[in-house]
Amino acid sequence: MAQQERKNRILDGYIPHDECGVFGVYSNGGLHAASVCRDGLYALQHRGQESCGIAVSDMGVIDGRKGMGLVGEVFREIPADLDGQIAISHVRYSTAGKSVVENAQPLIMRYLKGRFAVAHNGNLVNAEEIREELAQGGAMFHTTIDSEVIAHLIARERVKAPNIEQAVIHTMHRLRGAYSLLVMSPTKLIAARDPLGFRPLVLGRLGDSWIVASETCALDTIGAEFIRDIEPGEVVRIDAHGVQSFRDNCTGKRRICIFEYIYFARPDSVLDGVEAHASRVMAGRLLARQYPVEADVVIGVPDSGLDAALGLSRESGIPFEMGFVRNNYVGRTFIKPNQSERKKSVNIKLNALAQSVAGKRVIMVDDSIVRGTTSANIVYALKQAGAREVHVRISSPTIHNPCYFGTDIPTREELTSNHHTVDELCKLIGADSLGFLKAESLGELIGEGGAPEKTFCDACFTGDYPIACKG
Amino acid sequence: MAQQERKNRILDGYIPHDECGVFGVYSNGGLHAASVCRDGLYALQHRGQESCGIAVSDMGVIDGRKGMGLVGEVFREIPADLDGQIAISHVRYSTAGKSVVENAQPLIMRYLKGRFAVAHNGNLVNAEEIREELAQGGAMFHTTIDSEVIAHLIARERVKAPNIEQAVIHTMHRLRGAYSLLVMSPTKLIAARDPLGFRPLVLGRLGDSWIVASETCALDTIGAEFIRDIEPGEVVRIDAHGVQSFRDNCTGKRRICIFEYIYFARPDSVLDGVEAHASRVMAGRLLARQYPVEADVVIGVPDSGLDAALGLSRESGIPFEMGFVRNNYVGRTFIKPNQSERKKSVNIKLNALAQSVAGKRVIMVDDSIVRGTTSANIVYALKQAGAREVHVRISSPTIHNPCYFGTDIPTREELTSNHHTVDELCKLIGADSLGFLKAESLGELIGEGGAPEKTFCDACFTGDYPIACKG
Amino acid sequence: MAQQERKNRILDGYIPHDECGVFGVYSNGGLHAASVCRDGLYALQHRGQESCGIAVSDMGVIDGRKGMGLVGEVFREIPADLDGQIAISHVRYSTAGKSVVENAQPLIMRYLKGRFAVAHNGNLVNAEEIREELAQGGAMFHTTIDSEVIAHLIARERVKAPNIEQAVIHTMHRLRGAYSLLVMSPTKLIAARDPLGFRPLVLGRLGDSWIVASETCALDTIGAEFIRDIEPGEVVRIDAHGVQSFRDNCTGKRRICIFEYIYFARPDSVLDGVEAHASRVMAGRLLARQYPVEADVVIGVPDSGLDAALGLSRESGIPFEMGFVRNNYVGRTFIKPNQSERKKSVNIKLNALAQSVAGKRVIMVDDSIVRGTTSANIVYALKQAGAREVHVRISSPTIHNPCYFGTDIPTREELTSNHHTVDELCKLIGADSLGFLKAESLGELIGEGGAPEKTFCDACFTGDYPIACKG
Amino acid sequence: MAQQERKNRILDGYIPHDECGVFGVYSNGGLHAASVCRDGLYALQHRGQESCGIAVSDMGVIDGRKGMGLVGEVFREIPADLDGQIAISHVRYSTAGKSVVENAQPLIMRYLKGRFAVAHNGNLVNAEEIREELAQGGAMFHTTIDSEVIAHLIARERVKAPNIEQAVIHTMHRLRGAYSLLVMSPTKLIAARDPLGFRPLVLGRLGDSWIVASETCALDTIGAEFIRDIEPGEVVRIDAHGVQSFRDNCTGKRRICIFEYIYFARPDSVLDGVEAHASRVMAGRLLARQYPVEADVVIGVPDSGLDAALGLSRESGIPFEMGFVRNNYVGRTFIKPNQSERKKSVNIKLNALAQSVAGKRVIMVDDSIVRGTTSANIVYALKQAGAREVHVRISSPTIHNPCYFGTDIPTREELTSNHHTVDELCKLIGADSLGFLKAESLGELIGEGGAPEKTFCDACFTGDYPIACKG
Repeated sequence: MAQQERKNRILDGYIPHDECGVFGVYSNGGLHAASVCRDGLYALQHRGQESCGIAVSDMGVIDGRKGMGLVGEVFREIPADLDGQIAISHVRYSTAGKSVVENAQPLIMRYLKGRFAVAHNGNLVNAEEIREELAQGGAMFHTTIDSEVIAHLIARERVKAPNIEQAVIHTMHRLRGAYSLLVMSPTKLIAARDPLGFRPLVLGRLGDSWIVASETCALDTIGAEFIRDIEPGEVVRIDAHGVQSFRDNCTGKRRICIFEYIYFARPDSVLDGVEAHASRVMAGRLLARQYPVEADVVIGVPDSGLDAALGLSRESGIPFEMGFVRNNYVGRTFIKPNQSERKKSVNIKLNALAQSVAGKRVIMVDDSIVRGTTSANIVYALKQAGAREVHVRISSPTIHNPCYFGTDIPTREELTSNHHTVDELCKLIGADSLGFLKAESLGELIGEGGAPEKTFCDACFTGDYPIACKG
Repeated sequence: MAQQERKNRILDGYIPHDECGVFGVYSNGGLHAASVCRDGLYALQHRGQESCGIAVSDMGVIDGRKGMGLVGEVFREIPADLDGQIAISHVRYSTAGKSVVENAQPLIMRYLKGRFAVAHNGNLVNAEEIREELAQGGAMFHTTIDSEVIAHLIARERVKAPNIEQAVIHTMHRLRGAYSLLVMSPTKLIAARDPLGFRPLVLGRLGDSWIVASETCALDTIGAEFIRDIEPGEVVRIDAHGVQSFRDNCTGKRRICIFEYIYFARPDSVLDGVEAHASRVMAGRLLARQYPVEADVVIGVPDSGLDAALGLSRESGIPFEMGFVRNNYVGRTFIKPNQSERKKSVNIKLNALAQSVAGKRVIMVDDSIVRGTTSANIVYALKQAGAREVHVRISSPTIHNPCYFGTDIPTREELTSNHHTVDELCKLIGADSLGFLKAESLGELIGEGGAPEKTFCDACFTGDYPIACKG
Repeated sequence: MAQQERKNRILDGYIPHDECGVFGVYSNGGLHAASVCRDGLYALQHRGQESCGIAVSDMGVIDGRKGMGLVGEVFREIPADLDGQIAISHVRYSTAGKSVVENAQPLIMRYLKGRFAVAHNGNLVNAEEIREELAQGGAMFHTTIDSEVIAHLIARERVKAPNIEQAVIHTMHRLRGAYSLLVMSPTKLIAARDPLGFRPLVLGRLGDSWIVASETCALDTIGAEFIRDIEPGEVVRIDAHGVQSFRDNCTGKRRICIFEYIYFARPDSVLDGVEAHASRVMAGRLLARQYPVEADVVIGVPDSGLDAALGLSRESGIPFEMGFVRNNYVGRTFIKPNQSERKKSVNIKLNALAQSVAGKRVIMVDDSIVRGTTSANIVYALKQAGAREVHVRISSPTIHNPCYFGTDIPTREELTSNHHTVDELCKLIGADSLGFLKAESLGELIGEGGAPEKTFCDACFTGDYPIACKG
Repeated sequence: MAQQERKNRILDGYIPHDECGVFGVYSNGGLHAASVCRDGLYALQHRGQESCGIAVSDMGVIDGRKGMGLVGEVFREIPADLDGQIAISHVRYSTAGKSVVENAQPLIMRYLKGRFAVAHNGNLVNAEEIREELAQGGAMFHTTIDSEVIAHLIARERVKAPNIEQAVIHTMHRLRGAYSLLVMSPTKLIAARDPLGFRPLVLGRLGDSWIVASETCALDTIGAEFIRDIEPGEVVRIDAHGVQSFRDNCTGKRRICIFEYIYFARPDSVLDGVEAHASRVMAGRLLARQYPVEADVVIGVPDSGLDAALGLSRESGIPFEMGFVRNNYVGRTFIKPNQSERKKSVNIKLNALAQSVAGKRVIMVDDSIVRGTTSANIVYALKQAGAREVHVRISSPTIHNPCYFGTDIPTREELTSNHHTVDELCKLIGADSLGFLKAESLGELIGEGGAPEKTFCDACFTGDYPIACKG
């Protein structure tokens, strides 16, 4: 019976926490919107590797294509039915719920006013509540994703609202949680960011055309100019009359997910004015100050530990070294379906550079310890390669709390840091010393040393949830 | 602009006429419901070759799998997640709308009461009207198929109704048109047939388990016993308490599609008491009486013309002969996407048996002339093979009207019979004489010579629509 | 160890008996040779459904494409690299050896004189012997098929011979067994038939272009004119100078496989002057004379039993009836990989037409009883459908011996007729009477009533092998 | 005609230069040889991404599987027919010839003594000559790869030799060029390295089992212990009696390809005693000495330029910085089929880290300039990101000559360095200065400062071919 319950839970998808990326194009002129989306999605692939999709509006007719797999697999060819002037697109990584193409985005829906398409990144806190309420009114759902809930609300608001942008603005009153949202009607591209701006969203320009994307790296990749961040709470409408901003839901507050800087965003992306690479280098500098140690070399666990390692090296003066070779033909550790696959892929993915560490006292920098096994494997590999000492430095604080805003973090029960002190953990992973970035210094990552009000979300570290969450 | 409108029309699917097949299993005992469905679908494959799907309920948890292609392709293996005790399944052939997997059935929907699945065969007359009305209430649609409209209505009725069977009964009040419907809740299998019984639907038993299927041939294939036809208007609920019938919507009327006998049903199927093969043999006998001619051999166009040819041979005493060889590795002519593919496949598909017809006066029997080109090609082939005369006999009347109940018939403008007299048509196809079954004798096909009230629908021949239809 | 030996045997393919089809085009003018091949292969698909391939010569450059599956699957699109003026092609059905694409044909080989391609239908008696001899000289083999052996011999002869046609003629001196062979050099198409003409091979013309094919039905399908059979022992060279015949290896003898008439060839094909359909009708007539019985209807097991059933009906005056419906969406029984799949597919493939046989005395005609199970299933189905008596008539004699010339016949141990008398067999399959065509009347099938010398091979029935064979 | 000639050339594969990787397992105990091969191939994937394959010997029966694509794609599942105790495997990257599965390795051949399998890395200088000679003797070829030539020779030698290892030893007398060769007979695994040791090959041990691999990184990945390099000219036989070495063809000379250190090998691999990473760091140090310049940061082009950048930074004292982010979801630039794809993928693959370079004088280190376009694009990107000066340093000398030993280097005509002086090139790529590693200092990369005899091949830089080559 327990198993059945679990099966129910998974099937019904009450826990669809997921990290995703969105990219949209409004073309004025000759751009092939879907092709630009493909190139943009390539740059956002690190935000989701499970499925992807592109929806286009061609002279007012909306159509789309979705598939399981990487962008390069699903869109090896851009099919002819994706011709069009407006397009929104999506990459998805799911941690719960079923890996099925129905759950891929963008969703294309037909309602009273015709068709529209929806894609979003983030996670609602009250999706289940809204879903039940909608169901009471007879609504039905094909998928287990929040986007369908949002689409339902927009459709209902649209009956009353004069246009789709107003429907989106009203819909936002009902949504609690994190979302960077793209909506495409036959003639408009709407972008909206939740009032706390948990997830990034930027506006760019390519010639006369407009781009919206999760990260600036996607603008760079297609050669577009960065215009500005979409503000927390802002709704932007792009249509034949140009770009129009609606700030009805803006409050002046902002609580961007600090994990975007630590891990999610690509290092070359600039989020709300701060380059991810720079904030990681800063994390390394802070670690050097917080946990000084005598050592011969500093190495980073590729790829995300390299930036912080460089910062630690600079601050401490201890030489930076390449400590590992990463096999680029295997995927990301953090983003793998289940634990057994995670374990096996560590050995295939990383190999220590023996001559860099043999006989040396090594400071090894990584971005996080979600589960302890991966770290233990890596420390073991360094010792096997001859490292005399291994001092582990983590460029984020210890994680104690789940995330309700779209980051895939295990339950409290599964989190290593809730079962072990740092000292215990140090022994468990076989390190000679272990230091986590102090939570109180997180603000310095984004240059917010002594700001009067916190501008980022660090709930997974501190439990300080910007929105009341169950659990 | 015209092209865009057309594209809109196709995309929005206002003309989703389609012929399909349904098959459901309620297992008491060890039957693997999905495997039984697969075998049943094999037997119904002639009703739809475009896509197929199976939905199962496993201990109350509903899941499913759909795909484009033949049953043997999509279900080469029955995946483990299709284990379960109850199952409904579907084969689909679409003539309009997009050939996409989203439009495949069964649909699995989530609503207030959890999940349910829907599959149906037939076409609603008022689907668009209901869809608009539902959209006014904020409903949204993912597909362009009637099943989604039916599912929406059931979900709304279910809020008020005490159980799903009552919701289905109430939903039927809103539906106008043809439907043989299967609904699966976590614990029940519901079968319903529209009040005029346009499409067939039968109940069978396999050991202690219950089967519902579009045609009896599916019962034979899996070794099940035929119990009875589901009556027009009847709703049957199968659950742990057995089979329960609800006849609230029964009126005593019946108007089964006569084309089921002429062409659609497999010859071995018995529909409302009449074997399709027997009614085709009878059509041949009638043709012999209605259009007597001196000839040396009677041949049928395989496969569906063979039965009528046999009847004509028996009635006339003219020897039956194999006139053609059919290439079994190519699909059905009538069921092919576009006209150019139809033409080419005729030559690859049929070849005249020269020695059977050379120097002879031939009566060639076919089941219909929808477009004239195919017939012209076949007559030409016989003459090339040496036939002295070719007298064409068609085992159905001339078609003049569209069908709104799920048969793929071209528009009035496209129908050959609306542009040419039979004499002109005879010349066009190069035949020496041509005779169509007289519409007034259709009743004899099903042994209803002088019935007081018509029990079948022949609207495509006569324009006598049992339900008021636009167009 | 025994298992390993068996694995060895299979892997090394000492028993690659297979039935195949070949088709070649030499285009003078605008024909796209590969496309014509595809249409021709469609018509020969009954000769092999496992794999297919096309090799072309484009301005002297030879290239090709092969794949597992039906022609319509492998050549859904004709790839651009198959442009060319000359082409040979092949469909394959293998009964032993591995079902791998390496074993598909045509083979394209590179040797001293450049490239050439080989495709053949038939089976050599001395392939293993030649293979060993070639291996002694250092030859190596990539596949387990006879074609590679033939290609090796041609390559060796070519070193000495002035041209490829002479190399083929000399190669034939070494080959013992059945083969209808196509060879393509950069500029020539060579067709050769073994000196006894076991397998059919015909020459046709389409406009100015030349066609060679296993059966005439392939000529009809592409609209080509039948010119003549290639004679046993003849080599035909087609090149820029037209068609040239070489009869060095002709002996005037002929021993075409009688099973081609009984089962293999498509009924509309004319082999060495006799239409397969006509010979099957004659088999039915002979059965009527050899085993008279009182009955109400004559039915045939589709498709290959229908022709003989018609003949039996005509000779006896007992009405012909459709006794079964055949599911065209499932493959041929005789041609299925293993026994368990054979059994299951019978029920899915055939269904008795109850009203045609209920309460009647039925004569059921089939083409052979290779294994008894299929027949027993069919008789059982008829009785279930209400048949009062079932008299089985088989349009071929009892099979007692293996075939070494390319027909897939089980070992002596597996052949039912070697374990049971006809009476026993009759009981085993549950029939009321059973009659096999008498072996001494086989000549009448091809109008060779009292010929001085046998012109066909009936070794599987009589053991009279035209060539000494081991086993 | 020219086009046809070209087509001929490509088809006949006279220029099959390719870089590949090999991996073999001889299991004593419970290792599943094919699974170990898969993990090993993962680590060698950088040596070839076009196709891969595994051949196994299971109790003396040899079988295999090959496919186009990455290891993770082709061997997502290890099929059951790859069970076995001995296995050899291969990854392939082809620069000429057809990308077809027939050309994938290992090749499995059948000859007088049964079956054997062959896989190799390298390129023969006299393959064409041997091929013609073999063809004179009647040999035929299915593929255009050198492995088939080697297999033919082994088969011929095997007729005279007492065992397969002797056949390999004798075969080596005929081969001129580069090869690291694995041969598997039913009971033996043979590894051989050409007498000059152009390509790496190492021996390892995993428990009681033996491993041979192109690089040590494959040993590390599977947790195997490095035993030693296979010596130039050495043949190693592994069978039930253990490891036996044959040094008949050893001459004491060695000429390993210096490009293995500069680019091909994974940085963590140790080749003939020198770690690739260390030799790249040394290249950076040499560049600092050879081309001193004032600058603010040193950056490397990922991934292969990073090591040398680190060396340059250390030697010069100028800070090392991350200058680029590399999109790991797109493949390697150097290894892409055609030029147009190379260009487009640069933008998608690399993005400058603006804040690292803006306003700074940058030293950018890359491993080579094969064609100038890629470098120009990268320099342009840095300037766009705000770099004040860009000084390009290349960790290899200018390339002037083709490679006949398996490295994919364009023709003399296509090589940028044969058309432009370094100064011109500097302008063409838009750099402020440009320096290539001096060819005379190459020896220092492998610690061979003033060795009496050159132990590496630098022919592509110097034209000093260790073996006489045409062209």
